[in-house]
Amino acid sequence: MPVNLSAPDPAFLHAVPGVSLGIGSAGIKRPGRKDVLVMKLADGARVAGVFTKNRFCAAPVLICKQHLAESATKALVVNTGNANAGTGLDGRERALKVCDALAAELGIQRQEILPFSTGVILEPLPFEKIIGALPEAVSKLAPANWAEAAEAIMTTDVVPKAASAQVLIDGATITVTGIAKGAGMIHPNMATMLGYVATDAKVAQPLLQQLVKYAADRSFNCITIDGDTSTNDSFIVIASGQTGREITDSGSAAFVALREAVTRVAQTLSQAIVRDGEGATKFMTIQVEGGRDESECKAVGYAIGRSPLVKTAFFASDPNLGRILAAIGYAGIDDLDVDRLSLYLDDVLVAKDGGRNPEYREEDGQRVMAKAEILIRVVLNRGPVSATVWTCDFSYDYVKINADYRT
Amino acid sequence: MPVNLSAPDPAFLHAVPGVSLGIGSAGIKRPGRKDVLVMKLADGARVAGVFTKNRFCAAPVLICKQHLAESATKALVVNTGNANAGTGLDGRERALKVCDALAAELGIQRQEILPFSTGVILEPLPFEKIIGALPEAVSKLAPANWAEAAEAIMTTDVVPKAASAQVLIDGATITVTGIAKGAGMIHPNMATMLGYVATDAKVAQPLLQQLVKYAADRSFNCITIDGDTSTNDSFIVIASGQTGREITDSGSAAFVALREAVTRVAQTLSQAIVRDGEGATKFMTIQVEGGRDESECKAVGYAIGRSPLVKTAFFASDPNLGRILAAIGYAGIDDLDVDRLSLYLDDVLVAKDGGRNPEYREEDGQRVMAKAEILIRVVLNRGPVSATVWTCDFSYDYVKINADYRT
Repeated sequence: MPVNLSAPDPAFLHAVPGVSLGIGSAGIKRPGRKDVLVMKLADGARVAGVFTKNRFCAAPVLICKQHLAESATKALVVNTGNANAGTGLDGRERALKVCDALAAELGIQRQEILPFSTGVILEPLPFEKIIGALPEAVSKLAPANWAEAAEAIMTTDVVPKAASAQVLIDGATITVTGIAKGAGMIHPNMATMLGYVATDAKVAQPLLQQLVKYAADRSFNCITIDGDTSTNDSFIVIASGQTGREITDSGSAAFVALREAVTRVAQTLSQAIVRDGEGATKFMTIQVEGGRDESECKAVGYAIGRSPLVKTAFFASDPNLGRILAAIGYAGIDDLDVDRLSLYLDDVLVAKDGGRNPEYREEDGQRVMAKAEILIRVVLNRGPVSATVWTCDFSYDYVKINADYRT
Repeated sequence: MPVNLSAPDPAFLHAVPGVSLGIGSAGIKRPGRKDVLVMKLADGARVAGVFTKNRFCAAPVLICKQHLAESATKALVVNTGNANAGTGLDGRERALKVCDALAAELGIQRQEILPFSTGVILEPLPFEKIIGALPEAVSKLAPANWAEAAEAIMTTDVVPKAASAQVLIDGATITVTGIAKGAGMIHPNMATMLGYVATDAKVAQPLLQQLVKYAADRSFNCITIDGDTSTNDSFIVIASGQTGREITDSGSAAFVALREAVTRVAQTLSQAIVRDGEGATKFMTIQVEGGRDESECKAVGYAIGRSPLVKTAFFASDPNLGRILAAIGYAGIDDLDVDRLSLYLDDVLVAKDGGRNPEYREEDGQRVMAKAEILIRVVLNRGPVSATVWTCDFSYDYVKINADYRT
């Protein structure tokens, strides 16, 4: 069961002027399943994205990068049930056939379309099925369909993930609404599986590129479920440009306000992915303080967050906290002085000076471990920098979900 | 259940002249459990070791390194049930108390003793209990106790691990016998949890140091169970010097013969650790070929071998082989050209030119996946180097064992 996460109330998902969404049913994994999403953007919309660093990146990721470089974007198309990864040249051709069909349907060019896929790797994309679902999706295009869109991009997710915010910028109400999907193969090296955040603000293209990286580094790039970096990770920010004055100065209050609103929505989405991590029963925030730079803090956070031994101990609510120290020890900081290190579980000081806190009592650890949301705080005492990683525990259901994934 | 692994037959474990073993019962985790091992070496024995690179390395690891540098080794003492790691200065003092007590018992010096611990991290070493068991262990010292010794160092191991070989070197029969323990927190960065291999050969100290590294790199440094590098990893080679002429030339046939015999025993032990990996139901050999150097081949092997998604698919006998491609893709080879890559499962060509082999049929993959021992062969096609990693699958029982470890 997801940890403190329920399906978003459609009433709280604000439509974004200039962005329409339509859902179709290609029946890729099961007949009748909503598995195709089309997003249509108003003329003048700007789009920026960050993508997986996996060398086996999916065919659509390669095409997205190329199309973003060649042309303004007017539409996006997403299918679930098949990742179109590990599919070589044939996979790229199949993805382009889907782009061609949608281009014809919408009367636009192939390179104005960004394609996305998620699902099983190494299987040929059933492009005829997807193309067959496009007329339905296009006929349903409407700005109010965010909740349905969140559902259409789910794979092993239990709960659809969407978030929305409104901020006042230069006197205009600006909307930021987004959707994302998890729930396994989550250890972003850039962004997570699929995330889309749209705003009606008008932003200069270079600023949008800066913004998507900023938001990803503080959201999708701070989570891990199983340590597997996906082939399809993509995080896209769309600025439809329908509202307010154009933001052109990265130092302006308007840009900062927009950037923070997008980052907040992205954080909510990325945390929702962890809360709905495959088999998750606990949500852990790992805060690493006192590091020399962000990369060593994140390395420690990820070593803890992806350790199967740490994750199973949290599943069992067993304060076997030495496993956290072991993970810190192999995180790759070669000159780490463990005798300066402290470890807290919520407010409980478990270890200090590299050893067990003499006043630490097992029942205090036990009390914290019994909670569904836990803060793991590591103080390295070697510098001024902090970083945060979010993760979940590792349960029988993780094994069950992944052993049965294709059946 | 361990994969094709049964307890060693004591009749096939040759005693090593100059090495005596005695087992005691300190009752650290349970009353009556055999949990202390003492090894006593003949005068003139030489000892070399490799140790964990975990920065949170255990107190006994620090002491072993210091004692090896200071003095010849005359005895080793091992306890299970407590790792004496994450215990700071107090942990070092407790380990030295055990050394002092054994030194008094044997009439030798503190620095002539190497201490080892394995078990729970972050708990104070119950040194009184261990010291209390030393007289019993010392009174039982005998060269024939290898099978009992293998049992005494077990933690979550289901089956004790021992191996033995004899080779003719310069006309003398040389014996090589060893023991090791797993079974979790296995992702060696130097050697695995605990491994001890003894021979009666006489070898110059620098050659023995060379030999232990050579053997570790081809055995304990080729395995992963859960990706967690232990705080206590130690691999020790003992040459008691009781038999044959002294080997002083690293280019000699005698040295090569001894090195290969020790390496074979170490490989058998390290593979036994994987076969008895926590919850293991499958044994996988990952062979990575056509790399530019060994480190990139091992990086690919370890990325596959530690991926929870790959491991759960093998547990389910589900040929969801795209997960292997995804792991290859995030192994960290930045200029990997995936379009040149091939993937085999045993003799079945699954993927070539970066995509699915058009002739690959699901039932062929299914047939291989149903086996208990599987070869995963990755051909990178970018250089002349190969490397091998051994691993096991990821089952419900892994979660169960690690959720219940301390109870």
